[in-house]
Amino acid sequence: MPRPAVATVGPVRVVGTGLLGASLGLALSAAGVDVQLEDASPSAVALGRDMGAGRPATPDSPAPRLVVVATPPDVAGPTVLAQLRAHPGAVVTDVASVKARVAHHVERHGGDDAARYVGSHPMAGRERSGAAAADADLFVGRPWVIVPGPRSTPDAVLAVRSLAVDVGAAPTTLGAQEHDDAVALVSHLPQLAASMVAARLRDAPETALGLAGQGLRDVTRIAASDPQLWAAILVGNAGPVARALRALREDVDTALAALERAAADGPLTEGAAGPLARVVAAGNTGVARIPGKHGGAPRRYAEVSVLVPDQPGELGRLFGEVGEAGVNIEDLHLEHSAGQPVGLAILSVDPAAASRLEAELDRRGWRLVASGRAEA
Amino acid sequence: MPRPAVATVGPVRVVGTGLLGASLGLALSAAGVDVQLEDASPSAVALGRDMGAGRPATPDSPAPRLVVVATPPDVAGPTVLAQLRAHPGAVVTDVASVKARVAHHVERHGGDDAARYVGSHPMAGRERSGAAAADADLFVGRPWVIVPGPRSTPDAVLAVRSLAVDVGAAPTTLGAQEHDDAVALVSHLPQLAASMVAARLRDAPETALGLAGQGLRDVTRIAASDPQLWAAILVGNAGPVARALRALREDVDTALAALERAAADGPLTEGAAGPLARVVAAGNTGVARIPGKHGGAPRRYAEVSVLVPDQPGELGRLFGEVGEAGVNIEDLHLEHSAGQPVGLAILSVDPAAASRLEAELDRRGWRLVASGRAEA
Repeated sequence: MPRPAVATVGPVRVVGTGLLGASLGLALSAAGVDVQLEDASPSAVALGRDMGAGRPATPDSPAPRLVVVATPPDVAGPTVLAQLRAHPGAVVTDVASVKARVAHHVERHGGDDAARYVGSHPMAGRERSGAAAADADLFVGRPWVIVPGPRSTPDAVLAVRSLAVDVGAAPTTLGAQEHDDAVALVSHLPQLAASMVAARLRDAPETALGLAGQGLRDVTRIAASDPQLWAAILVGNAGPVARALRALREDVDTALAALERAAADGPLTEGAAGPLARVVAAGNTGVARIPGKHGGAPRRYAEVSVLVPDQPGELGRLFGEVGEAGVNIEDLHLEHSAGQPVGLAILSVDPAAASRLEAELDRRGWRLVASGRAEA
Repeated sequence: MPRPAVATVGPVRVVGTGLLGASLGLALSAAGVDVQLEDASPSAVALGRDMGAGRPATPDSPAPRLVVVATPPDVAGPTVLAQLRAHPGAVVTDVASVKARVAHHVERHGGDDAARYVGSHPMAGRERSGAAAADADLFVGRPWVIVPGPRSTPDAVLAVRSLAVDVGAAPTTLGAQEHDDAVALVSHLPQLAASMVAARLRDAPETALGLAGQGLRDVTRIAASDPQLWAAILVGNAGPVARALRALREDVDTALAALERAAADGPLTEGAAGPLARVVAAGNTGVARIPGKHGGAPRRYAEVSVLVPDQPGELGRLFGEVGEAGVNIEDLHLEHSAGQPVGLAILSVDPAAASRLEAELDRRGWRLVASGRAEA
């Protein structure tokens, strides 16, 4: 494959060779950019080097043009400051997932150096951490939020934007507080809610867990995330997350009052069903605002649902035949229940192609199911 | 296709020809069972008949052997009682998704007739309702909870169990309260939490929604459910849902206190990170108990992640080639972000086949990504 042209000019200093830092190093090195690796742990630097993420930085290394601080979030601010001072010709960015604290730190203590700082939040990651999990394609197709400070120069912003584009990410610009408020709603609150729903399963009887369906699996998937990392993220964005959680608690109190009324006086009690219906209806309104695959308002795809025997090759055969029918799958879900010999593949396709696909799959002997995934 | 042998002996009377009733009628009629349709709405009966779900019940219809009450949940109890009295030779079941209330009603008012009543909860459904959405395969591969009362005869239990098996479901037996406690945890609480997280998005700025990733989409998918139906389910199971929600509120209060400490005194304040890490860790423990695809403890599959250009046929081509490689896909997720030209297909496969599959896909020119789906 020809090496893609990149706009980033090296040397690039990567400070912190964990998952994000090493992945950046891999992607830039693969594009021919000179990458210098720095980490408090010499063995982390050696691992990054051995993986091909760059060369260890030494006192004799040439001055970097761009520094990427990829340390744990709680030391990002001081590390950015130290790098601004150590490399007076370099643009400095950091990749911490909470931005206002780092930005305030640089504003307050950075003096004129703050002109060379631009914050970043590449919205990519993995369930494992460390350089050993690094991947040159980690950022491909992911949003990369760029957070210029009030004093960032246009050149500094351009350098960080180019970095994002060079590693395959889609840059988007937000203010620091705007970013932190946004991730509180779209990332941090969902994490807490998923964890709290999953926590209720700790002491549930086996028989209850046997009834788990796709709804529970979806709601709790991210509950498997790393507690220490998440505690650092949550305390780092404490204000916005607290605001979102306080609003959620109001809904909890509303629902609880309605449920307690129904439990005491029966389901037809005044003030029982109404508030609960309003909580669910508010969720309808909110979820409808999540953009669809191609951005903008959610596009309605037609769903084609097919029963798939749980045997080697059956799902592959299905998708092969959908491909032969010339239909693009825009999204898909696979559903199954414990101990069942069949699964349900739900294909989202262009509404204009749905009935043709159904006819074609039917002709080929697949069992079609009218779509839908409620489980009540 | 040869007609499968069924154990259910007709006539079967289906009372309430909505989604579940009409789907049952379709499945049984297709198997050659005589189905009688009854509904408060004559046009609903006509629609069921026209779809092939059975014949309208008349005063001259032969006495049913089995009655399935598929009315809205709030009238299930009285309807079961009326059917027990109207058809003294029939076994009667109902399909309401909350069981203790119906069971108590029959116990209290049914007298000796209670021996012929057995509760059911087929865990199948759809986002649309009504006979028009009915499907003979709705129950295939789904759990069907059987809830015998203290006086149900073995013959009555067997008749309902046979019904479940005949329509392709997997029967499992629970007590009424045990069932209701279980669905509060695995279905009703997740629904409320998803709705409450989604509700926070109502007034979020567009820029925030543009950062929505797979985590948010998964957590809020079921927030699109019907408010009226869910209000009826939640008030019908008010006691167990209130218990689960009170426990969740304790976690909310713990997290909120920690966040407010961090917001006031900084992220390193004593008592800030610790409680938040414990909330996330408790979620780790809970989510690990959800059974995997084949029941029992969750099985670890290897994940193979592949970048898929968002072009017609690409996903089909991928799955076709996985099939050609002879590898069975045990589970899969498709990830994408708004406005991105590529998606990420994450295939769960037998760990023994993973490296062979990766080598084969690499050889065919696919871009592989080391797996993982965190987004922090």
